Amino acid sequence: MADLIEPKILKGFRDFLPEAEIDRRSLVERIEASFRSYGFVPIDTPVLEYAEILLGKGGGETEKQIYRFNDHGGRDVALRFDLTVPFARFLAEHRNELALPFKRYHIAKVWRGENTQRGRYREFTQCDFDIVGSDSVAADFEILLMMRNTLQAIGVGDVRIHVNHRGIFNRFLQRIRGSDKSVDILRTVDKLAKIGREATLDLLSEILDAPRAGEILSFIEPRENFEETLKAMTEAAGGENADSERMRRIYGFMKDTGTADSFFLNPSITRGLDYYTGLVYETFLNDLPDIGSVCSGGRYDDLAGLYSKEKLSGVGSSIGLDRLISALESLGRLRKQKSYADIAVACVREEDGGGYQVLADRLRKAGFPCEVLLEPKKMVQQYVLAEKKGARWLIIPGDPLRENDLGLRDLRSRETRENISLDEITTILKKEE
Amino acid sequence: MADLIEPKILKGFRDFLPEAEIDRRSLVERIEASFRSYGFVPIDTPVLEYAEILLGKGGGETEKQIYRFNDHGGRDVALRFDLTVPFARFLAEHRNELALPFKRYHIAKVWRGENTQRGRYREFTQCDFDIVGSDSVAADFEILLMMRNTLQAIGVGDVRIHVNHRGIFNRFLQRIRGSDKSVDILRTVDKLAKIGREATLDLLSEILDAPRAGEILSFIEPRENFEETLKAMTEAAGGENADSERMRRIYGFMKDTGTADSFFLNPSITRGLDYYTGLVYETFLNDLPDIGSVCSGGRYDDLAGLYSKEKLSGVGSSIGLDRLISALESLGRLRKQKSYADIAVACVREEDGGGYQVLADRLRKAGFPCEVLLEPKKMVQQYVLAEKKGARWLIIPGDPLRENDLGLRDLRSRETRENISLDEITTILKKEE
Repeated sequence: MADLIEPKILKGFRDFLPEAEIDRRSLVERIEASFRSYGFVPIDTPVLEYAEILLGKGGGETEKQIYRFNDHGGRDVALRFDLTVPFARFLAEHRNELALPFKRYHIAKVWRGENTQRGRYREFTQCDFDIVGSDSVAADFEILLMMRNTLQAIGVGDVRIHVNHRGIFNRFLQRIRGSDKSVDILRTVDKLAKIGREATLDLLSEILDAPRAGEILSFIEPRENFEETLKAMTEAAGGENADSERMRRIYGFMKDTGTADSFFLNPSITRGLDYYTGLVYETFLNDLPDIGSVCSGGRYDDLAGLYSKEKLSGVGSSIGLDRLISALESLGRLRKQKSYADIAVACVREEDGGGYQVLADRLRKAGFPCEVLLEPKKMVQQYVLAEKKGARWLIIPGDPLRENDLGLRDLRSRETRENISLDEITTILKKEE
Repeated sequence: MADLIEPKILKGFRDFLPEAEIDRRSLVERIEASFRSYGFVPIDTPVLEYAEILLGKGGGETEKQIYRFNDHGGRDVALRFDLTVPFARFLAEHRNELALPFKRYHIAKVWRGENTQRGRYREFTQCDFDIVGSDSVAADFEILLMMRNTLQAIGVGDVRIHVNHRGIFNRFLQRIRGSDKSVDILRTVDKLAKIGREATLDLLSEILDAPRAGEILSFIEPRENFEETLKAMTEAAGGENADSERMRRIYGFMKDTGTADSFFLNPSITRGLDYYTGLVYETFLNDLPDIGSVCSGGRYDDLAGLYSKEKLSGVGSSIGLDRLISALESLGRLRKQKSYADIAVACVREEDGGGYQVLADRLRKAGFPCEVLLEPKKMVQQYVLAEKKGARWLIIPGDPLRENDLGLRDLRSRETRENISLDEITTILKKEE
């Protein structure tokens, strides 16, 4: 029919069918429960903002990827491309309404008109959490601990969080008189895992010279354990200093909480972004390290500087939800649940529709989601439908409908029990939980 | 400083600070729990779609309000302005992946560049739920029952759901030979509550003539109860017919489930939208009727007609989340909770930061969200901070830190107990739940 509009979505965008959406929400719900247990609170900001706010002083890649247009009032607006910039604007705007240190999380969609090759999406979900307004070591450690415990709570298995301190790196660069090239050096070092030692050495030699390139490569090499690495870094940076002392304190907290095994001091971790000034980290799954970092971030000392004179320091992190879901998928750990309802009520007589809802409401009130089938089709068709919808059990009401005289079909074993009461069914459901 | 960018958001858009966001999420969580208990499943669709998909055959108001632009690839795209059109497209696209009847919900933001007067927003949240692929009376009734039970579960008090049947109205119009003017008549009748009887009569007289205007006004007048109204409507429509029979069946289900008191047959409810063909409804709060309908919808017989040859009938509804929150606010029923953590741990010695997290983790694992204060400020400042953050209790660790020798400050009564153990604290928290 020429009249029809072809139902299709934009490249890089996705529909989520129930099975995928239930898994996605279940993941978000477990992440949120963990954040909340640490006293972190949710905020939300608009999807659309002034382009000037989002682009700040402008930036190459971002500017090319951002969805930007003029609205009805001729305003230059854009869809947010991350949750950090809106958060910085939010802090500058609402500073007086917030008690510092402010611990917030924000889980929401962002948009980038990126090349969609390599499994990248143009619409994806970010999951950010920050502690703003505290310079304390305790804040750094809390973020690390929360990352570890949250990821372990959502079923991706054990994680290894690679940590580093930008300040120690900077001191080392100062000592070898490489500070003026620090941006180029950090970017190059960041590529180590991708391009390998040789290529990194070549690039660094071009930036500085061969001997200092060698020193850098030695600096970023982890030693046999956390303490040895920290010792080597500290020496290379010219001896004990506030940053190495801070790193030692964080390590002490790791030991005090029995979590040291989850952390790895890796001097090659730098995080490309300019605004990090202290601790930085990336998180890898022990069961699937090749997927890359699933949770990264660091400490910054002036988050809202574009919009406010007040310096707001803090420490934050971001979980890549889409990457986590890919990981769970690869590990076969997605539940692929089709519904929240394990039990359904069959439709025997249309005129008993009210009674079926009464029956179902009893189960719902007892905490068991229950779907009511709506059409009096052949019972075998109803078995198939209930199973397709993800139910394990199907109640087959009698004619006349009596709460103490029901049938219960186990859709897995394909056995049906007769003359069972609603109370007995509840007992069975409780046992299965 | 001339350098700073002013931190501001677009007119009609909103930031949600924690207190508001916690209330909003708590509302959504309760709504979702109710939907899920009926076997409804979530879906999600892209925020951005082809403009052609969203605008369909084009429509005056919508076309003016929609946020529409050309993306990087020159595609004509737009932000969704409701969740119904994307759902229709979703159904046409994924028909073969879904088991019908399909019961889905979708809670998400939509955008309309509306005039922002009268408390309207340009970014707001819709909460839609539908049963698609069933013509059954049971489907109509399930939507009504779920609306009632969901709204009662979220603390807005009792509701009154006004129901009507478009089919009976159409039969009546046919009888008085007014069918060719039905769109105008329905739109006029829809305004009754706003403009009053006299003005409605005048408008109807212009559309038809004075005697028939009078007949319409009599038709849309509710009688003393559901049955009497249905009887009068049926007679005016020319006697018993399939639609009046259906309405009677629905009324029977209301009585069978003991919910008839929540429903009101109101023949003046028509819902403006053209696609409704059967049952239609609007929901009012008994405690705050003037706020208008908080949940409306109806039955349609061809939802995805723009994109698919297959006729998909169904019944659906939409909760206006922003209006519900206004209502709860007016009724003083928002919790205005500042955090999920009722308890916090004070910071006595910086070097015990690891130990404080161990303490807090015990409480978190016992189900009590617990915030750790990060800086060793004066204790009275920590009292103030913990209170500001919404905690009721503050644990004051000793020096040295011992789990069996803690202080517990009740921030409400301002009393502090000494020498209390973590187990005793857990017992107190359990009692308070």
